[in-house]
Amino acid sequence: MLVNNKRYKTIWMEKEGFIKIIDQRYLPHEFVIEKIQSAEEMALAIKDMHLRGAGLIGAAAGYGVYLSALQHFKKDLSSDNYKKIILSDIENLRKTRPTAVNLEYALKRQIKNIEKPITKKELLETIKEEAKNIAYEDEINCKKIGEYGSKIIENISKEKNKNTVNILTHCNAGWLAFVDYGTATSPIYEAYDKGIKIHVWVDETRPRNQGARLTAWELGNHGVDHTVIADNVGGYLMQNGLVDVVIVGSDRTTYTGDVANKIGTYLKALAAYDNKIPFYAALPSSTIDWEISDGLKNIPIEERDGEEVKYIQGLSEGKITKVLLTPKESKAKNFGFDVTPSKYVSGIITERGICEANESSIKKLYKNSR
Amino acid sequence: MLVNNKRYKTIWMEKEGFIKIIDQRYLPHEFVIEKIQSAEEMALAIKDMHLRGAGLIGAAAGYGVYLSALQHFKKDLSSDNYKKIILSDIENLRKTRPTAVNLEYALKRQIKNIEKPITKKELLETIKEEAKNIAYEDEINCKKIGEYGSKIIENISKEKNKNTVNILTHCNAGWLAFVDYGTATSPIYEAYDKGIKIHVWVDETRPRNQGARLTAWELGNHGVDHTVIADNVGGYLMQNGLVDVVIVGSDRTTYTGDVANKIGTYLKALAAYDNKIPFYAALPSSTIDWEISDGLKNIPIEERDGEEVKYIQGLSEGKITKVLLTPKESKAKNFGFDVTPSKYVSGIITERGICEANESSIKKLYKNSR
Repeated sequence: MLVNNKRYKTIWMEKEGFIKIIDQRYLPHEFVIEKIQSAEEMALAIKDMHLRGAGLIGAAAGYGVYLSALQHFKKDLSSDNYKKIILSDIENLRKTRPTAVNLEYALKRQIKNIEKPITKKELLETIKEEAKNIAYEDEINCKKIGEYGSKIIENISKEKNKNTVNILTHCNAGWLAFVDYGTATSPIYEAYDKGIKIHVWVDETRPRNQGARLTAWELGNHGVDHTVIADNVGGYLMQNGLVDVVIVGSDRTTYTGDVANKIGTYLKALAAYDNKIPFYAALPSSTIDWEISDGLKNIPIEERDGEEVKYIQGLSEGKITKVLLTPKESKAKNFGFDVTPSKYVSGIITERGICEANESSIKKLYKNSR
Repeated sequence: MLVNNKRYKTIWMEKEGFIKIIDQRYLPHEFVIEKIQSAEEMALAIKDMHLRGAGLIGAAAGYGVYLSALQHFKKDLSSDNYKKIILSDIENLRKTRPTAVNLEYALKRQIKNIEKPITKKELLETIKEEAKNIAYEDEINCKKIGEYGSKIIENISKEKNKNTVNILTHCNAGWLAFVDYGTATSPIYEAYDKGIKIHVWVDETRPRNQGARLTAWELGNHGVDHTVIADNVGGYLMQNGLVDVVIVGSDRTTYTGDVANKIGTYLKALAAYDNKIPFYAALPSSTIDWEISDGLKNIPIEERDGEEVKYIQGLSEGKITKVLLTPKESKAKNFGFDVTPSKYVSGIITERGICEANESSIKKLYKNSR
């Protein structure tokens, strides 16, 4: 999407052995591009969250394996040793974010290539193509989610006689979390690009403020009208007719339609339900968990450091500064996600189309995919 | 309540013509006591929020009128001119926080005294006693709310075989908002002082963080076990059996039981309802609006400056520092309150006892009060 009127993706291959990423640590205050030239540098970028987000972590891991294959290709190694050394780099990449589903997914695809009976040169080429494919598929899935999801926005626009459609989103399921387009934001960009009048309410998404920092920055750069609100405000807006549709992303969705997403999503779903406002989760098929039927009982919820609640980072006199918000002695708890039961979810927007949040509707959409 | 093991109120008369207050602007990082010796100083303290909170603003206004009466008593003024000059100070006090119901209430009580056919000396004495009474009544009402409300906590403790009772609260309806005890916190302090095992989940309450700054500070100083959480977390806690009861304050409650309170309260009420957790609002009778029947339609909601969302204040290297959280260009909206419809309110805790959140139950409790 656009940054300062120039088209960007979150990760791209500039030239052979030369990957570039947007270093997201300084957003929205500084826009930094980082060069990544080795598997070690990529592992560090993932671990220290220069980049983050489901799809993007997968793409970065795929390219990380390519950088490894390229680095070691120049050395005088037997085919076996060549494969061994790449597998050891893969292990290092795997350790960076142990719970990221897409990381595992991308690394598994590259491992399959290593298991093929091919020459070193063929392997390097295969790994490179796989890395590009992983990134491309992520992008194309997000694009399709946007095409399907934008129809929801378009229909509301028609119902409202082309008056502005107000969309509420939580956290950053934006293009910064993927290679491009995002999931929750993809229908928004698609609708915007089609000329539909829209306005986005951006939940700031404490404690890490991905909404206030990343989603607001994304939307602003692409020219989409938006307003940042405290996480407390969405209920009031919905009670007062100021939200037409809620679209969020998902970190894991059960095949029965329970949606795990950034903490606080459930509260917005309750308010949407109470005020008869449609509530959608947008996600690629890789996010669907085909094993778990009861999301509330069985999706593990990451607990993060309470310091993320007690301290916050922002810009003060041109410098990125961390400030303490609470009494120093007070404890804080920091649960990362919650689960919205399927009954509060109006629908799921995927790269295959839109379905209801229940087993039969999801399985119908995916009947050939398992 | 206790601060560094010493008992404090938020406002008190140290000696004749000499009022002291806790200057809340620097909490939780600095504990500052301020001397107030004139009506002008008191008006400034209210206006610039050295103190804030429903009950406390009323008490401060009452004392402000007393300081005015004392200042001008020493001058050689006719009784009429004496009254005129006090009334002019009252006008200045009124302008400080135009929407504060208790400010108006306290000033009206003092104006009634001025209208009495009494001597200057008698008037000064009457105004002083009235100021003390306003503060005392606030304190005693809060204390009674605690006595009634603590029974709810005590009953839950019994049901749980004296295991810890987990209470969730939003914003600061604590003793810092009143003269002492608070409303939502009063049952908490009463239960704690009775030796009931409790733990409080403190919503940080963005954008002004009254929970993270004030409630956490209050509870910590009084020794009450508590944990600060982002406003997004309450729903998750309730889904997972980690909250036994929700107690909040109120800025205005209709006689039909609709509860206006700090923005975000409604979201917690929805989650409590969804998880069958009791949700109480604690408030003195002065908070009940006997004119409005539909809170959602008719309670005016204050909209504050969006800069309060975009910037936040905290401690950095020992200095209170303000940081920017969003892109500089992003807009922000800042609605101060929301309305929780009566159907989501399990009960209302008042100084007269506990009632249901509906017209007949509220009127029964207050049948002799109008």
